[in-house]
Amino acid sequence: MKLTIYKDVLNEAIQQVSRAISNRSTNPILKGIWLQTSDEGLILTASDTDLSIRVIVPLEANNKVNMTIERQGGVVLTAKFFVDIVKKMPANQITIDTNEQFLTLIQSGKAELQIMGLDPEEFPVLTTLDENQIIQVTSEMLKAQIKRTLFAVSTTESTPILTGILWSLQNNQLKFVATDRHRLSQSETILAGNEHVELKNVVISGQNLNELLKLLPDQNTLIDMVVAENQILFRLGRISFFTRLLDGQYPDTSKIIPQQFKSELVVDTKSFIDAIDRAYLLSREEKTNIVRLQTLSDGTLEIASSLSDLGKMTEQIEIVRFEGEQLKISFNSKYMLDALKTIESEQLLIGFTGAMSPIIVKPLNDVNLLHLILPYRTTN
Amino acid sequence: MKLTIYKDVLNEAIQQVSRAISNRSTNPILKGIWLQTSDEGLILTASDTDLSIRVIVPLEANNKVNMTIERQGGVVLTAKFFVDIVKKMPANQITIDTNEQFLTLIQSGKAELQIMGLDPEEFPVLTTLDENQIIQVTSEMLKAQIKRTLFAVSTTESTPILTGILWSLQNNQLKFVATDRHRLSQSETILAGNEHVELKNVVISGQNLNELLKLLPDQNTLIDMVVAENQILFRLGRISFFTRLLDGQYPDTSKIIPQQFKSELVVDTKSFIDAIDRAYLLSREEKTNIVRLQTLSDGTLEIASSLSDLGKMTEQIEIVRFEGEQLKISFNSKYMLDALKTIESEQLLIGFTGAMSPIIVKPLNDVNLLHLILPYRTTN
Repeated sequence: MKLTIYKDVLNEAIQQVSRAISNRSTNPILKGIWLQTSDEGLILTASDTDLSIRVIVPLEANNKVNMTIERQGGVVLTAKFFVDIVKKMPANQITIDTNEQFLTLIQSGKAELQIMGLDPEEFPVLTTLDENQIIQVTSEMLKAQIKRTLFAVSTTESTPILTGILWSLQNNQLKFVATDRHRLSQSETILAGNEHVELKNVVISGQNLNELLKLLPDQNTLIDMVVAENQILFRLGRISFFTRLLDGQYPDTSKIIPQQFKSELVVDTKSFIDAIDRAYLLSREEKTNIVRLQTLSDGTLEIASSLSDLGKMTEQIEIVRFEGEQLKISFNSKYMLDALKTIESEQLLIGFTGAMSPIIVKPLNDVNLLHLILPYRTTN
Repeated sequence: MKLTIYKDVLNEAIQQVSRAISNRSTNPILKGIWLQTSDEGLILTASDTDLSIRVIVPLEANNKVNMTIERQGGVVLTAKFFVDIVKKMPANQITIDTNEQFLTLIQSGKAELQIMGLDPEEFPVLTTLDENQIIQVTSEMLKAQIKRTLFAVSTTESTPILTGILWSLQNNQLKFVATDRHRLSQSETILAGNEHVELKNVVISGQNLNELLKLLPDQNTLIDMVVAENQILFRLGRISFFTRLLDGQYPDTSKIIPQQFKSELVVDTKSFIDAIDRAYLLSREEKTNIVRLQTLSDGTLEIASSLSDLGKMTEQIEIVRFEGEQLKISFNSKYMLDALKTIESEQLLIGFTGAMSPIIVKPLNDVNLLHLILPYRTTN
């Protein structure tokens, strides 16, 4: 393989595929980027077998020549070095020349490097997906759905299925659910024109969706999704993002979400976030981050940290609307903060079914987003 | 103690004194900020005994009232929390009210916190320095001198004296020297009007000077320095920065700096830095970061990394001026990069006295700055 390519074009593609490279892998080939020329241009691929990213850099784009290929071929180059080398090359074009032993000469201006490449034959093959069933989504919708639920996935490997987000699609309704057994987040949206598509028990690694988030463009674009038996492909222009689906059955979470409340509070979102944030300051030293909510007889809501060696914080905020029984409930303030950050409405609703039952937090007048937090059993 | 103070004013002072708080200390009082009111205003002090910072916030400044004091007194508050609490308070004024048991009520808007304070009696006393001998310097000069030498101090504790920068002042000449036995950096400057002051064996902790750097203002200002037997005070407006001098005798480094060279090269600074930077990429995996310089018969200078498992990098750059014998020498490219970053002249001079003797790097036409790097003995 021999080609000469513009540095900025190559650099952009390298940054994109690099997200699939895992530091945990011990197999050298998985720490590499596979470069391969074709009649279309240069294809870059990286994979940790669980997540694979492929980017096609075309021969030319927008009437600008991106590269010239002198000899077709391929090589796998260690990502860690290749990424830095490309960035630090002196000229705006780079020539990459690989011999039959995969020894690769990288040349730019007067700088010349030789690096040992690996044989692409050893690189894991990306399966071709049956593209009969393509679902189109907008990047904006995808971003919003992921951000509203991602933080609630489990980060421990004890129940691997909970490290993913559950996707379901039925009657044009796309639903994301994530839970780590202490809290649950659920976000729904309409996906019109998909009457005949159904997704069930599709669970995608939270970590991989976090990488996808970083690849989603700032401006809103259409994204093709292809769901196969054990993997899903997201196609963002020239980027193909493949992630394996998590094995196992996701638990049925519908029954733990209370449908009716004993007490319902409406508060101003910003005042509530700020107060919880301050209470979190003093509660975070204890691992449980316990904060207590209590409705007071003067009609305000008291937010208080539990008394620690450091001290105690209490604050009252106004209740905009209150229905039902007075209440006193303790919970993990970190979980509450995570949930609150996804709420964009000016006011929010908190629903309670008792001091030992799940707390529900959701934007006012929005049935599509819901967060559930299990309370803490405390003695005071 | 009871006072009400503007949040932004208090926050700025807290950020400044916090630099003296060490995470290594196990003594709770040293993890605190001592707040003390006086007729002048609020005095904040933090200290890890080695470095102490004191800031005086005046009752008013620029015709703006900063605080009102209702009851004089003092308390020590755990820095970690106090810093975050002040930042997150809702209103633009904060009231701090300490009782006789040092329980402290912090109140702002509707938020109220109680934190346990400590008795200021336990706080280390800052010694009063004899202010007969004040040396005035500009912050710009001080910054430049520190930045040109700081990176060369030793980071291991095996020879504690080498973790500091040696300051000497004689005949109006202020000299900074730092060395970790593998390299040495030396920067000199004229300090007119100090004919009668002499500094000898004044060695100041590199870590503390790094904290001082962060406190030095962006615009050039005058700074008072008071040097006492075992400590030095820098006074930057309302900030007093005390650091203990390092114990012991700094080694005599004058003899290891060669006065004459067997070979002298002048090269373009930017081309040389960029080439060393690229060679460093491939050499950094080996702990020694070895890079080789070699003058070639075509009059260029070859920069090459040693061959590693990854590969090899070679590059030629133009020599602007060359005098003396042809040469081939190996060295730690990380040390070279550190030194090169302080060189602002367009061209630089590299002097050699043999493949096993120190390499000298300095700006062209500037006798005040000099870096020395010991070469590496290599087999090829």
